[in-house]
Amino acid sequence: MIEQIECDQVCINTLRSLSMDAVEKAHSGHPGTPMGSAPTVYCLWQRFLRYDPDDPKWPNRDRFILSAGHASALLYSLLYLSGVKAASPSYENPDRLAVTLDDLKTFRQAGSRCTGHPEYGWTSGVETTTGPLGQGVAVSVGMAMAERWLAATYNRPDLKLFDHNVYALCSDGDMMEGISSEAASLAGHLELANLCWIYDDNHITIEGSTDLTFTEDVAARFASYRWNVARVSDANDLGQLTQAYETFLDTHDRPTLIIVRSHIGYGAPHKQDTREAHGEPLGPEEVRLAKEFYDCDPDQQFQVPDGVREHFKAQIGKRGETAHAAWKKLFADYAAQYPDLAAQISCMQQRGLPRGWDDALPSFPADTKGLATRESSGKVLNAIAARMPWLLGGAADLAPSTKTELKGALYGDFQAPGQHENLNGNYRGRNFHFGLREHAMCAVVSGMSLSGLRPYAASFLIFTDYCRAALRLSAMMEIPVIFIWTHDSISLGEDGPTHQPIAQLASLRASPGMIVMRPADANEVVEAWRLIMQLTDRPACLILTRQAVPTLDRARYAPASGLSRGAYILADAENHNPDVLLLATGSEVSLCIAAYEQLKLEGIKARVVSMPSWEVFENQSQEYRDNVLPPGILARVAVEAASPFGWERYTGSGGRILGVNSFGLSAPAKIVAQCFGFEPSHVIAAAREQIQRHASAVSN
Amino acid sequence: MIEQIECDQVCINTLRSLSMDAVEKAHSGHPGTPMGSAPTVYCLWQRFLRYDPDDPKWPNRDRFILSAGHASALLYSLLYLSGVKAASPSYENPDRLAVTLDDLKTFRQAGSRCTGHPEYGWTSGVETTTGPLGQGVAVSVGMAMAERWLAATYNRPDLKLFDHNVYALCSDGDMMEGISSEAASLAGHLELANLCWIYDDNHITIEGSTDLTFTEDVAARFASYRWNVARVSDANDLGQLTQAYETFLDTHDRPTLIIVRSHIGYGAPHKQDTREAHGEPLGPEEVRLAKEFYDCDPDQQFQVPDGVREHFKAQIGKRGETAHAAWKKLFADYAAQYPDLAAQISCMQQRGLPRGWDDALPSFPADTKGLATRESSGKVLNAIAARMPWLLGGAADLAPSTKTELKGALYGDFQAPGQHENLNGNYRGRNFHFGLREHAMCAVVSGMSLSGLRPYAASFLIFTDYCRAALRLSAMMEIPVIFIWTHDSISLGEDGPTHQPIAQLASLRASPGMIVMRPADANEVVEAWRLIMQLTDRPACLILTRQAVPTLDRARYAPASGLSRGAYILADAENHNPDVLLLATGSEVSLCIAAYEQLKLEGIKARVVSMPSWEVFENQSQEYRDNVLPPGILARVAVEAASPFGWERYTGSGGRILGVNSFGLSAPAKIVAQCFGFEPSHVIAAAREQIQRHASAVSN
Repeated sequence: MIEQIECDQVCINTLRSLSMDAVEKAHSGHPGTPMGSAPTVYCLWQRFLRYDPDDPKWPNRDRFILSAGHASALLYSLLYLSGVKAASPSYENPDRLAVTLDDLKTFRQAGSRCTGHPEYGWTSGVETTTGPLGQGVAVSVGMAMAERWLAATYNRPDLKLFDHNVYALCSDGDMMEGISSEAASLAGHLELANLCWIYDDNHITIEGSTDLTFTEDVAARFASYRWNVARVSDANDLGQLTQAYETFLDTHDRPTLIIVRSHIGYGAPHKQDTREAHGEPLGPEEVRLAKEFYDCDPDQQFQVPDGVREHFKAQIGKRGETAHAAWKKLFADYAAQYPDLAAQISCMQQRGLPRGWDDALPSFPADTKGLATRESSGKVLNAIAARMPWLLGGAADLAPSTKTELKGALYGDFQAPGQHENLNGNYRGRNFHFGLREHAMCAVVSGMSLSGLRPYAASFLIFTDYCRAALRLSAMMEIPVIFIWTHDSISLGEDGPTHQPIAQLASLRASPGMIVMRPADANEVVEAWRLIMQLTDRPACLILTRQAVPTLDRARYAPASGLSRGAYILADAENHNPDVLLLATGSEVSLCIAAYEQLKLEGIKARVVSMPSWEVFENQSQEYRDNVLPPGILARVAVEAASPFGWERYTGSGGRILGVNSFGLSAPAKIVAQCFGFEPSHVIAAAREQIQRHASAVSN
Repeated sequence: MIEQIECDQVCINTLRSLSMDAVEKAHSGHPGTPMGSAPTVYCLWQRFLRYDPDDPKWPNRDRFILSAGHASALLYSLLYLSGVKAASPSYENPDRLAVTLDDLKTFRQAGSRCTGHPEYGWTSGVETTTGPLGQGVAVSVGMAMAERWLAATYNRPDLKLFDHNVYALCSDGDMMEGISSEAASLAGHLELANLCWIYDDNHITIEGSTDLTFTEDVAARFASYRWNVARVSDANDLGQLTQAYETFLDTHDRPTLIIVRSHIGYGAPHKQDTREAHGEPLGPEEVRLAKEFYDCDPDQQFQVPDGVREHFKAQIGKRGETAHAAWKKLFADYAAQYPDLAAQISCMQQRGLPRGWDDALPSFPADTKGLATRESSGKVLNAIAARMPWLLGGAADLAPSTKTELKGALYGDFQAPGQHENLNGNYRGRNFHFGLREHAMCAVVSGMSLSGLRPYAASFLIFTDYCRAALRLSAMMEIPVIFIWTHDSISLGEDGPTHQPIAQLASLRASPGMIVMRPADANEVVEAWRLIMQLTDRPACLILTRQAVPTLDRARYAPASGLSRGAYILADAENHNPDVLLLATGSEVSLCIAAYEQLKLEGIKARVVSMPSWEVFENQSQEYRDNVLPPGILARVAVEAASPFGWERYTGSGGRILGVNSFGLSAPAKIVAQCFGFEPSHVIAAAREQIQRHASAVSN
């Protein structure tokens, strides 16, 4: 075995060379940050991270997040050298998820595990999808919160099941994005002492020097968030790095930021400290020179010197293996003493639902006055939460308005213990106060979900505009986060156009991998929650009204269980051969029912289709869909108090869409609805016009 | 005249009473912040703001922005008492824009100028639309930057045309939102000494005490951004407030934050300092008690004591009138000495274009290899900028990638002078470095636009997800900001799904008031800029490729000027009676042209319709639209490398959409395009299938 110091250097330079080679071979990628921050990450993994490469899904592992996702080549090199295996035995072909040398050689090519930016679920060892800046650090806060909650909830004296740390490597870009400020402020407030951000401070952005635009005092800023701040003046100094990580481990009352001064493209004689080193291959000659500087063989590509992988295995691997083995024993003892709690943990890790989770779901009697779907949702949420301890969440300072508070003596606030006695909170609390930080909130709940919890996040529908980047990544990661968006249309009333969503529904529906649900009444809300709770591989957006909507008479109309098909026939012509189809979602369904009843009196046969989820409906058989929306019936009216964009899919080109084509209006809800034509009379008129139009088209 | 101190108190309490009464009568609104922050705002307006109520559009006025837009009743009361008149003589019925007592009495009712949140363009004196938190403060940074640019560009010795200040009142919610962190960091970097944020620190959020989630040290945070921070321990102390504003005026090297400790619902005996005071009417009894506390008549509503309006007129009005009159004289002198510059200022303020702005627009010869539309756009932008001094902007750290740099010795960087000599910058620079702060960037350019400049902002299309809230407000305000979004599809290649936009195009198209343009080749880019530059009342999103696209042979196909209709027939069957329509935008247009040529060889008559802007096309006559897309031709194929969402509008239910239904793929662009079927062969197959399908439908 080579000497320790020399050995460290060889390992670090191997990380650098592999990263350079991967980028060079791909003719694409970001070599500079891997070269500069290799020692920072190496030191963490080799000396501190408790991580078992044989089981990268061990629940109590330390997390490492590459928030600077463009430095993916570094992460892949690290995963390869550490021998990180398949992510989970539940995958069909798990071995294929582990990074191989061939994957590094096919960096950024179709099929490679080494994608341009790290993708959760695609590559074993990638804890969360990163690349869009700020997302990784915000997710890391969610993971740290999850650890605090798991520890507070499940640990028992002498049985510390959860005590892991969360590390995130971030760049100046992460620091500049607003989401990181939101997340850092929240993390400081919550005193997340298990959270460590490592800021790779290389002074270079895509446009040039960070002096061009980023001259704030980052250390002072994080101190203002109540973080501990440590500094490393030279990324190549493993001694300083070690000391900084030890400072983090010794800090028990706040998160830690380690600011590491590094040099982008370190070792490349012409490109170090230049913006060119950020996002372009160095070129073969510069790679040669850098390798010479590193004492690597400039004629070799993808070279892994003898002993390097063994060294990784002996350090990371051994420490992780030992810790994991001890944990397994601990868990066995725990399971013996607390079988119910152990079962909860196992169920949660498998994204299961506890037995009886839906035993107490309410059922709502018909009621023409009805109640707001945010209200019924609050009741359903509480009914499920009482039976599922790891269902938890909160709102972006809108819990009273979104009705997302878990009520009862059992549920406190999630707060740092001690300091917040007066807030009746500790880390066992299940009500989370995210503050007016929608973007961080959505990334944080993704982090909580990635740690096994079943979190929800809530705000007004309009504020999805603040957090779309985080929503998108939750869909890309295929994790079952629950997003609750209330005040879902112009009918929120007086707050006016600034708060009235128009394009937001269409925007969410256009997004891949997301289930959007806009239930029509209290009983559809029950069914929506029933469906959402059973999702395991995608997030859902539950879209709810501020205003009361009638609870439909399900004896008279079809049962709300039809929601499970995405869309269903709610009311029909007696002969099941209607003259016109009335399509609607959410609060506009009862409007269509009113029109239907009126049309019936006039002898006009209408069918009302409630369409709470287009995505679920699209997944039904063609037969079912044709049964609900018979292709032969062209007279169609769609009613939704939102942008009509996208409705042509169901109305066809000859149909009619009653939607909103402009921004809204500040006035009481009923007046607003009137002004925009959301009244039965307009639906009736449109239905008549449609019948006439398509009748004459046929007779022509 | 009553005594000064007493008089101040009567005026402040009148602001409070009017605000309470407006909310009470509306049964809706936010009384608490107006009650708490009335003295803060009163002191600013009465003693400092240089603002002429007779001409609220005077270009050198100080700006006051109510970033805490929910406190709108306070602003309206202030506008009414100050006698702010019609916003602009160019409005048809300008007087109607001014706030009257009747408007206050119809707060939050349809037609009132006193909408739920302040709406720019609807109410005279509202400088920008606010309500969604963080937006107002970010816009204020843009206004402060605009002032710095205008002053540096147009002021001459002894002719200081521009020297105004920008004030923004903000809440804890503004402070928590990430956009405010981005904006504040940028403002500190740029040393905007003309910017003053006033933080109404009332310790209460919707969920309760700010201690629940917001315990950072705001003063230290802003100091870390290199701001000056002043404190006022009691909002009711006009002496302290005066001193703080004077500190701001005396600070010449950085922006100022004034932290004012106030009490939400001040004076309401049971609701002061409670969350209930935030967003609900106080109730008649509590209003009575508060009025008693204020020494107002509890039996009167909307009472304005004698002398109050006169006092406002004597203070704000007189100071503003004097300053404005002096400025008019100054401007006359200036116009005599610098007629060209004066003409520029006038042209800019009227949202005009300088003569000859489009004289040097390039024209691109046919070229099968072509160039990326981001490249051609960069050339066009530079050609226009050379002729229009107030066209300026930049990117969120992506200028080299988005090709949005103004090149040439004339253009430096916009930077604080002195400190940034090495960056070759000063406040006259026209290249802006926004940093990785997309959200703030979009609000900042709105602020610049509201001050008369013609700004653009740029990033990758995927990052619209970071800034949708600011984009939406620019559309709601109907201001002609130019947004440039490059890397517009999966064809950006190796960066992979994290960076590949799928839903973003549909999302933007679903948004009211926004022009979306996705030009097909270099010459369409020219026409897109030509159209965009002529917009005066709405923002535009220009969607551009990373990869090269062929420059179409315009002798063979229709001229690119067809873009001005939104969609046009690019290539047609000889008899103008095609068998199938091929619809596409951007990079997929040349794909359709290739398919068209192949189909032609096979004797199949196709029409290619380039559809760069749906919004513009929808505004054409029915006749034109039917001519482009004849209703009788049902065989239709739409091709766009994005979510198919919304395309049914043009394909009908029987058409075919070649789109992307999932997230993308990390691989070279050509491979990605292949994997997702963006090749002529797929278009040809779809065209054949469509022809067959609709032929058989007819024959059946």
